Amino acid sequence: MPIIKVGVVGFGTIGSRVADAVLRQPDMKLVGVAKVTPDYKAKLALEREINVFVPESSMDRWEELGLKISGTVEDLIDSSDIVIDATPGGVGLKNLELYKKAGRKAILQGGERGEAVEATIVPQVNYHEARGKMVVRVPSCNTTGLVRCIWGLRREVGVERVFAFLVRRSADPADKKGGPLDSMELNPVRPPSHHGEDVRTVLRDLSIFTTAVKTPVTHAHVHMLLIKLSKAIPRRDVVDILAEERRVLLVPESLGMRRTSDVFELSRHLKRPFNNIYENIVWLDSIHCDEGWVYLAQAIHQEAIVVPENVDVIRAMCTDVDAESSMNTTDIRLGIRKGIL
Amino acid sequence: MPIIKVGVVGFGTIGSRVADAVLRQPDMKLVGVAKVTPDYKAKLALEREINVFVPESSMDRWEELGLKISGTVEDLIDSSDIVIDATPGGVGLKNLELYKKAGRKAILQGGERGEAVEATIVPQVNYHEARGKMVVRVPSCNTTGLVRCIWGLRREVGVERVFAFLVRRSADPADKKGGPLDSMELNPVRPPSHHGEDVRTVLRDLSIFTTAVKTPVTHAHVHMLLIKLSKAIPRRDVVDILAEERRVLLVPESLGMRRTSDVFELSRHLKRPFNNIYENIVWLDSIHCDEGWVYLAQAIHQEAIVVPENVDVIRAMCTDVDAESSMNTTDIRLGIRKGIL
Repeated sequence: MPIIKVGVVGFGTIGSRVADAVLRQPDMKLVGVAKVTPDYKAKLALEREINVFVPESSMDRWEELGLKISGTVEDLIDSSDIVIDATPGGVGLKNLELYKKAGRKAILQGGERGEAVEATIVPQVNYHEARGKMVVRVPSCNTTGLVRCIWGLRREVGVERVFAFLVRRSADPADKKGGPLDSMELNPVRPPSHHGEDVRTVLRDLSIFTTAVKTPVTHAHVHMLLIKLSKAIPRRDVVDILAEERRVLLVPESLGMRRTSDVFELSRHLKRPFNNIYENIVWLDSIHCDEGWVYLAQAIHQEAIVVPENVDVIRAMCTDVDAESSMNTTDIRLGIRKGIL
Repeated sequence: MPIIKVGVVGFGTIGSRVADAVLRQPDMKLVGVAKVTPDYKAKLALEREINVFVPESSMDRWEELGLKISGTVEDLIDSSDIVIDATPGGVGLKNLELYKKAGRKAILQGGERGEAVEATIVPQVNYHEARGKMVVRVPSCNTTGLVRCIWGLRREVGVERVFAFLVRRSADPADKKGGPLDSMELNPVRPPSHHGEDVRTVLRDLSIFTTAVKTPVTHAHVHMLLIKLSKAIPRRDVVDILAEERRVLLVPESLGMRRTSDVFELSRHLKRPFNNIYENIVWLDSIHCDEGWVYLAQAIHQEAIVVPENVDVIRAMCTDVDAESSMNTTDIRLGIRKGIL
């Protein structure tokens, strides 16, 4: 089995988690991470013997702080088979020139526009579409969470129409700014939100309408999802389909799961790195079925949910490993759960 | 025109606002308010020459603080034609015995169970049903807000089905406790929430499914409403219907209305007492129509929205003033708006 050499450009919310996940894969080597700012996160990465690459212009600042660098961002790219770009939204597209010049494959995140890439991938739906591509995108946390949840029902029963109401976190726990405080903001005021269109980059031709409101919380988004199936099926069949779906974890109220803060606490009891909840957390008791309409509520950990997708897309682009094998490896190595907690 | 003598029992969030509204009506006299705890709110009410009545057991505490009382709660009830009970949820039903014993009419709030009263009233729908009744209920803020918004569309076009997703404030601005903080709580986890059933106490036989999630904000609830009309009509007709509806105010994003905090700020620029927003605040630009489905988002000021309803129900129960005349008087006296801001 050849080892895939992976470079991670950007070491923030997503980059640090993807780097951690790559380190846990048997068929991957983390060449290093690219980072601009020398800080405590960089120091701790170096302690764990992660190679850090920096832009030439900021080398001096790193050296002044005694932080050892392994080269420039260009050096990282040259030494990698594939680059995960986890820079802030909009920067990834600018970086594409670097990756193209070096002839390297690249994965962009959901913050980048979908039109600029060859495919947008949620592995359980369209892993195979990443094959032979040079630039692929993994969609945002909300889109990924919607796709995973809708996909099983679409595949097994058929979906006529989806309405999704997103109650969004305003900032990540470590964000320095954010808002609003003590307020809810329609985001956007004029519907639909962009999420529906983004879901359609993976689940083509799906009839989906999404809206979103921002609230002053940091740990997770909540989706209130209303799905009209192509035919009415009993609630237990809906539960069975979701319980079989990869990366979807059903949690019962009887075990005290009522809040997004419970989801955060769950991550600590699972001993997950970075408090990662890679799974859609679907409140089992929220699932309600009536005349072919399915309602459910789920929490989406915006910082972590796309991590397994990034790992799988590396394999889809760089190997001939099939989708199921890749997802099995990823899920085992990251301790990802499914079914009912 | 005979003057209606009104007693208000409970001087908290709703009671203080209803007392203020009664003082502004040409055909009502505020006999006084009943309050248990002597505090700054009591002192300021006395400064404004509002008579305060207290339970016999707490008279000493009031006198120690030099706060002048006008008698017992029973004295207030005896001196009133009608009592507005604005005590915390559950207390109103217990107080009913007092009102019945004195042979006085009473209005309870939405925190009380609907089965215990003769009718639940949202005046623009069923004002006439309060006629001749002794105990009537005004539903909660969320129910009132849903009813007002759905009613116009049901009356003018017909409504096949409603899905309402409520994003609730966790506490009022002056609450001493509340929560969750930095978390969203499914409330309840198992749908539907009680709001749909409560709406049906006014709009009978309506097909409505509601769910709710609590968020750490204080100023207003946000409703994300999805209404299937009996027939598809153009968006401009939906806007026209809502713009004609009493106590519904449409606000455009172009004027900077995007957040619940904007709704709070609006109350200050309107120079409203107690920051009251009596109207459903519907984001004009949120109104979206597609194949007979109408989506819209509205903010509901939980502290104030039921105030005009309480005032109208006083008239419905104590006079032969018709619904339109009562609501006109109430709306003019409280400065209530409708149409597009």
